[in-house]
Amino acid sequence: MSNTLFLQACRREPVTRTPVWIMRQAGRFLPEYREVRSTVDFLTLCKTPELAAKVTLQPVDILGVDAAIIFSDILVIPEAMGMPLIIEEGKGGPQFPTPLRTEAAVEALAVPDPDDKLRYVMDALRLVRKELGGRVPLIGFSGAPWTLASYMVEGHGSRNFRYIKEMMYNNPKLTHTLLDKLTRAVTLYLKAQIEAGAQAVQIFDTWGGILTIDAFREFSLPYIERIVREIAPTKTPVIVFAKDCAHSLEAIAATGCSVVGLDWSIDIDDARARIGAKVALQGNLDPTILYASPETIRREVRSILKKFGRGPGHIFNLGHGILPDIPVDHVKAFIQAVREESTQYHSS
Amino acid sequence: MSNTLFLQACRREPVTRTPVWIMRQAGRFLPEYREVRSTVDFLTLCKTPELAAKVTLQPVDILGVDAAIIFSDILVIPEAMGMPLIIEEGKGGPQFPTPLRTEAAVEALAVPDPDDKLRYVMDALRLVRKELGGRVPLIGFSGAPWTLASYMVEGHGSRNFRYIKEMMYNNPKLTHTLLDKLTRAVTLYLKAQIEAGAQAVQIFDTWGGILTIDAFREFSLPYIERIVREIAPTKTPVIVFAKDCAHSLEAIAATGCSVVGLDWSIDIDDARARIGAKVALQGNLDPTILYASPETIRREVRSILKKFGRGPGHIFNLGHGILPDIPVDHVKAFIQAVREESTQYHSS
Repeated sequence: MSNTLFLQACRREPVTRTPVWIMRQAGRFLPEYREVRSTVDFLTLCKTPELAAKVTLQPVDILGVDAAIIFSDILVIPEAMGMPLIIEEGKGGPQFPTPLRTEAAVEALAVPDPDDKLRYVMDALRLVRKELGGRVPLIGFSGAPWTLASYMVEGHGSRNFRYIKEMMYNNPKLTHTLLDKLTRAVTLYLKAQIEAGAQAVQIFDTWGGILTIDAFREFSLPYIERIVREIAPTKTPVIVFAKDCAHSLEAIAATGCSVVGLDWSIDIDDARARIGAKVALQGNLDPTILYASPETIRREVRSILKKFGRGPGHIFNLGHGILPDIPVDHVKAFIQAVREESTQYHSS
Repeated sequence: MSNTLFLQACRREPVTRTPVWIMRQAGRFLPEYREVRSTVDFLTLCKTPELAAKVTLQPVDILGVDAAIIFSDILVIPEAMGMPLIIEEGKGGPQFPTPLRTEAAVEALAVPDPDDKLRYVMDALRLVRKELGGRVPLIGFSGAPWTLASYMVEGHGSRNFRYIKEMMYNNPKLTHTLLDKLTRAVTLYLKAQIEAGAQAVQIFDTWGGILTIDAFREFSLPYIERIVREIAPTKTPVIVFAKDCAHSLEAIAATGCSVVGLDWSIDIDDARARIGAKVALQGNLDPTILYASPETIRREVRSILKKFGRGPGHIFNLGHGILPDIPVDHVKAFIQAVREESTQYHSS
C-alpha cells in the first residue's frame, strides 16, 4: 500500500505527517457526488455497488484524503433486520414509517446474515479495494446499537428522543433485549465488512450524548465494548466515535478500541492527557470552521495540531460530519493545511 | 416571606428540604396555560402584564414549586434593540425575519432603556410580586449575550449555526462588538428586573455548548462574567445555566455567580466535587424522565439527591426546559418526590 499513514496512526506508530480524512467525505458538498445522486435516490446509491464504490473513491481522487470510507448509511442494518426505511436526503433525514414500539416488534426483528441481506455493502467494499489498488486504506462502519435503537424507536432523528427514553426508563428489559439483538447484528456486519476488505472500522454513537452518564454506561457503552471485543481477533483497528460523550473518554478507551473519535467540545490536549497513552485520537475541528476563510481554517488546524503536540497517534478529522453546503475549496484548504502544518510535529 | 427555601439554597444556607422549580414551568404542558394562550398569541401574552403575571403564578398554585419565574422570552431583548420578532409557539420556534448579518445592522442596534421598551416585563414582575404576597420568591431572567447573538445572526434556532460561526471565525471584531452591545443591554435589563422585584436572576446560555472550549471562553463566558459583576452590588443571587458546557464548570463558577445550572450530561456529585464549595448547584434531571412512570421518576429523583448528598446548596430542577407534552400528573409526582425524598439529606 502506498499511503499507510492512517493505519499507522491508528496503531500509534510514527508517521511523517498527520493523516486526515473527513466524516461524510463522500457526500453532498462534492459536485461530483451530487451528479451521481441526481441519477438515483439515496438508498439505491447505497445498494448499487458500482455507484457506492464510485462516490467512495471521489474524495480520495478529488481531495487527497488519507483514507476512504465506504459510502453507506448506518440505517441499512435496521432495514436488513426488517424495518422499512425511507431516506430522502436533504428532506428531514431518514424515516422508519413504522417505528419500533412494542415487545412483539422487537421480537420480530431478525439478526441478518450480512453476506445475504447486506451483500451490496460487501460487494461495494470489494470493488473499492480493487479500484483503490492500495492507494489509501478503506474504512468500514456501523452505527452503535444505542444510536440505531434510538432511530428505530423514534422513527426518525429527534430533538428530545421521547420514545426511546420512555422505553429505556420504563422498560429497561425490553431496551436491553433490543440492544442485544442490535449488538449481534452489528458484530456480524462489521466482521463481514472486514472480511470483504475494510481495513479499519468506525462505530458511530451519534446519539450517545443524549444520555445521562449512568444511562450511557448502562445502555450504550457495554454494547460497543462487546462489539470491539468480538472484532479484536481480526486485529483490525476500531474507531469509536461517541458524540457529546467527553464525560466518558476513559471508559470508551477501555473498550479495547484502537482510536477514540472526538467531537469539538473537548480540547484534544486534554483528551490526550486522559487517554492518549492507550489509544489514538481522531478529530476534532468544529465542522462549521470550514465555512470560514482558508486563512482561518489554517489557523484553527494549526491550533489543534499544536494542542495535540509532537508524536504519533493523531488522525485529523472534523468533530462531526461535513456539512452539505461547505465550499469544496475550503475543504481542499483544510486538507492542505493539515498536510503542511503537521510535518513539524513528526520526526523526519 | 413564607417559603424562602429557594433563596436559602442559592446562598448555600441550611434548609429543611431541597427546593424545586422547573425551567419553563409556566408553559404549554399546563392546560391552564394553554387556556390563556388560546386567547392571545405568544408575544401578546409576554407583553400583557396581567396575563404574563397570571401564567407566571399558575405553576406556583398548581404544582407547588418553590419559586416563580417570570413568564417571558429571551428574545424580547433583541426585539427591543430593534429586530422585528415573530414567535409562533409550537411552529418551529421564534424567527427574526431579517437576521443580523452586517456591520451596519449591528451598528444600528440600540441599547434599550428597559423601563421604556421592556416596561411590560417590569410591570409583570411588580404584579407577580404583589400577587405572590411573599409565598415564594420570584426569579427574573435573560438570555446570555452569546445565545442572543446566535439567534439574531441565524434568524432562528439552528442545527449547525452556520452564520454566527462564520461571523465569529471570520470577523471576531464584529462579533465582539455585537456581544458587547448585548452585554450592556442585558445588564440594564436584569438590573431593571431586580429593581422591579426579581429576587434572583438566571442567565440562560442555551447555545454555549455549540462552541469549542476556546471559543466559549472568548465569546461567551467573559460577557456573562461582566453581567454578573455588574449585578453583584445588588446582592441578588445570579444563576448561570450554560447548556452542554460541563467542560467549563470551574470557569462558570468563577464568574461570581451564586448558582451554576447543570444539564443532565454531568453527574451532580462530580459537579459538587468540582465547584460545590464555591456555588450552589441547580439541576439536573433529564427532562425526558418525566415521560416515564411516577415510580421511575421517583427513583431518578432519589438517585440525584443521593449523588448530591447531605447538606445545603442544591436547587432541584430539570437539566433543561420541561417539554410541552409531559403529563401534568408526572410533573406533580416529580415535585412530590423531591419534597419527600430530600428531607433526609438535610438536618431537621
